Amino acid sequence: MPPLGELAFTRLPLDRPTLILDPDRARANIARMAAKAARAGVRFRPHFKTHQSAEIGGWFRDHGVEAITVSSLTMAAYFARHGWKDITVAIPVNLREMRAIDELAGMIDLGLLVDAPAAVEALAREMRARARVWVKIDAGYGRAGVPWDRPDEVLALVRGIQLSPRLRFAGLLTHSGHSYRQIGIDGIRQVHFESLGRMEQVRGALVAAGAVGAETESCPISVGDTPTCSTMDEFPGVSEIRPGNFVFYDLMQLRLGTCSAEDIAVSLACPVIGVYPKRREVVIYGGSVHLSSERLLRAGPGQVGTAAGVGGHTRAGDHAGAAAPPGGEARPLFGCLMASGAGGALGVPDERAPVVGLTQEHGVVRLPEGALERVRIGDLVLVCPVHSCLTAALYKEYLTLDGRQVERM
Amino acid sequence: MPPLGELAFTRLPLDRPTLILDPDRARANIARMAAKAARAGVRFRPHFKTHQSAEIGGWFRDHGVEAITVSSLTMAAYFARHGWKDITVAIPVNLREMRAIDELAGMIDLGLLVDAPAAVEALAREMRARARVWVKIDAGYGRAGVPWDRPDEVLALVRGIQLSPRLRFAGLLTHSGHSYRQIGIDGIRQVHFESLGRMEQVRGALVAAGAVGAETESCPISVGDTPTCSTMDEFPGVSEIRPGNFVFYDLMQLRLGTCSAEDIAVSLACPVIGVYPKRREVVIYGGSVHLSSERLLRAGPGQVGTAAGVGGHTRAGDHAGAAAPPGGEARPLFGCLMASGAGGALGVPDERAPVVGLTQEHGVVRLPEGALERVRIGDLVLVCPVHSCLTAALYKEYLTLDGRQVERM
Repeated sequence: MPPLGELAFTRLPLDRPTLILDPDRARANIARMAAKAARAGVRFRPHFKTHQSAEIGGWFRDHGVEAITVSSLTMAAYFARHGWKDITVAIPVNLREMRAIDELAGMIDLGLLVDAPAAVEALAREMRARARVWVKIDAGYGRAGVPWDRPDEVLALVRGIQLSPRLRFAGLLTHSGHSYRQIGIDGIRQVHFESLGRMEQVRGALVAAGAVGAETESCPISVGDTPTCSTMDEFPGVSEIRPGNFVFYDLMQLRLGTCSAEDIAVSLACPVIGVYPKRREVVIYGGSVHLSSERLLRAGPGQVGTAAGVGGHTRAGDHAGAAAPPGGEARPLFGCLMASGAGGALGVPDERAPVVGLTQEHGVVRLPEGALERVRIGDLVLVCPVHSCLTAALYKEYLTLDGRQVERM
Repeated sequence: MPPLGELAFTRLPLDRPTLILDPDRARANIARMAAKAARAGVRFRPHFKTHQSAEIGGWFRDHGVEAITVSSLTMAAYFARHGWKDITVAIPVNLREMRAIDELAGMIDLGLLVDAPAAVEALAREMRARARVWVKIDAGYGRAGVPWDRPDEVLALVRGIQLSPRLRFAGLLTHSGHSYRQIGIDGIRQVHFESLGRMEQVRGALVAAGAVGAETESCPISVGDTPTCSTMDEFPGVSEIRPGNFVFYDLMQLRLGTCSAEDIAVSLACPVIGVYPKRREVVIYGGSVHLSSERLLRAGPGQVGTAAGVGGHTRAGDHAGAAAPPGGEARPLFGCLMASGAGGALGVPDERAPVVGLTQEHGVVRLPEGALERVRIGDLVLVCPVHSCLTAALYKEYLTLDGRQVERM
């Protein structure tokens, strides 16, 4: 095991917790996913909830992306203002926002999600503009959607949509977020093909009922979570994929084995405000309000939490329970240091320097033998987030490695 | 056990997750703590990191409060702009903000914290304005501060401060945040008196060394976390208390037994976007970005997580590990519904309706027998946060029960 690299991040003169973006890594992540979608013959409709940035959105256009996914109407309106004309709001429609939905649907090609008759009825009754409506299917995740094994309920929703002159049935959509709870690639593969099989079954029932035609375009299937989209190459029967987190990746994805350490494109630069040699800990100015309280479980002694070491797992809430190494006690991990790379760039996360505690503004980082002596009060260190979507959501902008601000919503 | 009360919050016409404030409850919490400080003969220097609001800050002035605590320089500057002239920044001084510190110290009576010689040296060398400097003591919490059993290190810091013409030794300060990890009032009492005893020991060592006089004013002691300040009445040897969370309280404090259910002054109003009768769950538009990922552990079957039921405990990270009921598995609790009170006011949290899962924008709420049938898509429900400081930190304003906006920093 090599020693921790350069700990002080000296590239930028920062005085407060600051969200750092490596544009080259993010662009490479985008290019890789776009190429995979092209190879697999599926449309790439990336989820923009992770970056929430008009500029980063523009990097997707270089790969021919014209249709996107978001998770709130606010986000849809933001990207519409920045020229995106085909946007799916991938959360069950919020009936309390009906006026704003109708207004936006009058301006762009807006996609909505439903999983209940009340939602279809409200849309049919209150929309003046036209909208595409996806039926959300729960293919095993257990969050939102009509359960895949109740095709009659799906059929009733499809018929309801088809009856409305302003609604157009867009297809069947799922998010198999239980891929985040798997142990390594085999588990992710199982979720992937099981979900696709279930979606195909639902489509088959609609075809059999005569609600849609037998050809794929008559009932598109939309899937997409970062673990499956990052690791699988085959998407049989799928029309489009909607991964989001892959643009930055993070410690959770690294644990899952869905990215390499060099793919992680964001990091939080934090000032060191305390050094405690006897505890082998430093305290950083960087707490829950800077990093989010999202957590994994720490590796046990002698284990360093590499993806290869993943062998046990826990579910500590959806999207928060990615696998922990075997034998690890239930000790939380809120992030870990990233040593600086060559020329002061981002390096790779090292779980031997875990963030073991977070309060509102303080973070406690434990350091291994030989590392603590190289950290001083006033240094700036880089912290790799557990879940980049949630960390990035706490900031209004990114700072690139060359000191340029990139706007967020 | 009474049935859950009115679940739909109909008082305000809201379309998105919105932070609701009950000003009467917050004012009552402030009045109670101010009265306790007066009775105990200690200065009340409330921590404003919880509310971060100039208007709410004003409510403290009605009780004669003139000196406050904050947890960042940004917050100190905000409250200075709103007329506060005596502010302690209760986090070890961030040397990277030295210029801004010096500037602010030239405008108000600024208090800073140090726990290392390097910090004293930097302040002595670089400050042009005068500042009060507290020596931060670790009285058992294990986050920041000089450990209480190393009086020689404390003495060296005090001497260093006293040698600088621009620095004034303010006293000894601690935050006994391990009160959050206790089981009921007895545990909190033990932390309280153990911490005070240790602070007194450190002061005794300074007196013995001739660094400070024997009278209290020569070496004030500042303490204060919401659990001890809410439950203890005696503060022997203490000059000032700095509680913060008590202004709103939350589910964590309720579990600890430091507040009553009717004291909780904030809640998150969230639209219902999915109803899943077979799972007995509803999905709300309200996720980690709206509530924070902060969590407790859920009660086991048949236990409803009242403070009286607290009997086991866990540490899931500092400030995140308040006690869980006995026999409860390690199932996370991200909040719970608050039924509406009389006239559509805030009611009380009910852990029989727990938030069992959170993703970026979705929350999953499990509902007990008889409650699910009363919730419809499009309803608005109230969620009691686990940790009000972190939930409030995600908003730019509060909405009061009569629909008025109250600004946050």
